[in-house]
Amino acid sequence: MPLGELFADPTDTREELMAATYGALCEHGYADLTIQRISDHFPKSRSLLYHHYDSKDELLVDFLGYILDHQESTLPQDADGEPTQQLRELLDHIHPTAPDTQRSQFLCAIIELRAQAATNPEYQAQFTRSTQYFHDRFVRILERGIADGHFRTVDPDRVAGLFVTTIEGAMLQAATTDVDGEQLSTVRAELDTYIDARLTNVDSEAAE
Amino acid sequence: MPLGELFADPTDTREELMAATYGALCEHGYADLTIQRISDHFPKSRSLLYHHYDSKDELLVDFLGYILDHQESTLPQDADGEPTQQLRELLDHIHPTAPDTQRSQFLCAIIELRAQAATNPEYQAQFTRSTQYFHDRFVRILERGIADGHFRTVDPDRVAGLFVTTIEGAMLQAATTDVDGEQLSTVRAELDTYIDARLTNVDSEAAE
Repeated sequence: MPLGELFADPTDTREELMAATYGALCEHGYADLTIQRISDHFPKSRSLLYHHYDSKDELLVDFLGYILDHQESTLPQDADGEPTQQLRELLDHIHPTAPDTQRSQFLCAIIELRAQAATNPEYQAQFTRSTQYFHDRFVRILERGIADGHFRTVDPDRVAGLFVTTIEGAMLQAATTDVDGEQLSTVRAELDTYIDARLTNVDSEAAE
Repeated sequence: MPLGELFADPTDTREELMAATYGALCEHGYADLTIQRISDHFPKSRSLLYHHYDSKDELLVDFLGYILDHQESTLPQDADGEPTQQLRELLDHIHPTAPDTQRSQFLCAIIELRAQAATNPEYQAQFTRSTQYFHDRFVRILERGIADGHFRTVDPDRVAGLFVTTIEGAMLQAATTDVDGEQLSTVRAELDTYIDARLTNVDSEAAE
């Protein structure tokens, strides 16, 4: 489920708060975000908002955790599929592509929030959790592919590290440079070639 | 020349302004930076600072250009060396490693500046220039290595894109997560393995 849909139909106060935060971030970005502007997207009273959160940053840290929970619950789950295909599906889900305008605004807001992590330990904890989560997902697929002979005997941590680092670099470029969708697709395609060159176990394919 | 040395011994007003900006960024980060705090690191009058720049952002955009000029002039230049070695040297120069404290503070400040590029076209132009510059450096080495048979016939733009995107992702992680020097080294090592698996032309090495 894309993020826009996640926030389209909130069913309780917490979901309404999260949807209001998303709407205000897309509209104003982080730098110009205020509790008042979040409140403008919130159908209930501003005092209720303050009842739940002491500050804008406390709300935003909770919001980051909420998004990550959502991603964890909607990513394709590790199953018994072919490992190469599973790697590609996971990459397809999290590597940025040509963004539509609202998604692009949201990606920019996320990068602004991420920069807060440079100096704020609570933001840092959220982004560390996110990086680690995706790293672990890649590791599990790699371990299974090595065990069943699809992949060469690589160090899963090293390969997973390259995947996650590249994806995060692509997000940074998408938000802060004039990179276009075609250039993002090029990096994504090169990751496929990297899988073939580095991981695919030719012994399991070639008959010699 | 490391950045700290670049700013250690300014010889004219512009260099003094750049050194003051560096010092204030390392001390306060972007969010808490003010013209007054930059001025505190500047040995000449505050009015002279205002004579050169109308705003903090104008000064910082100029500062980003100054750093990039410095990087361009101090990176190892393309020469007649062995292409694989040249790739590794360029990676060594720009891939983040375990940062000392001051460099870490500066890296965090750069990421904060980079987040401004999400909404400010002048910042975006500087970071686009930086990404493009490093991309082009990798492309030139790759083209030479393909021409002389060291490398396979790859698309240089694709491979260069992966290098630059990964390095920028590593910088983002170094500034905004609890990643340590060992994890950064792991990604750097995987790029070496990628070079071997994807680029090295075995026909030029193996005698069959």
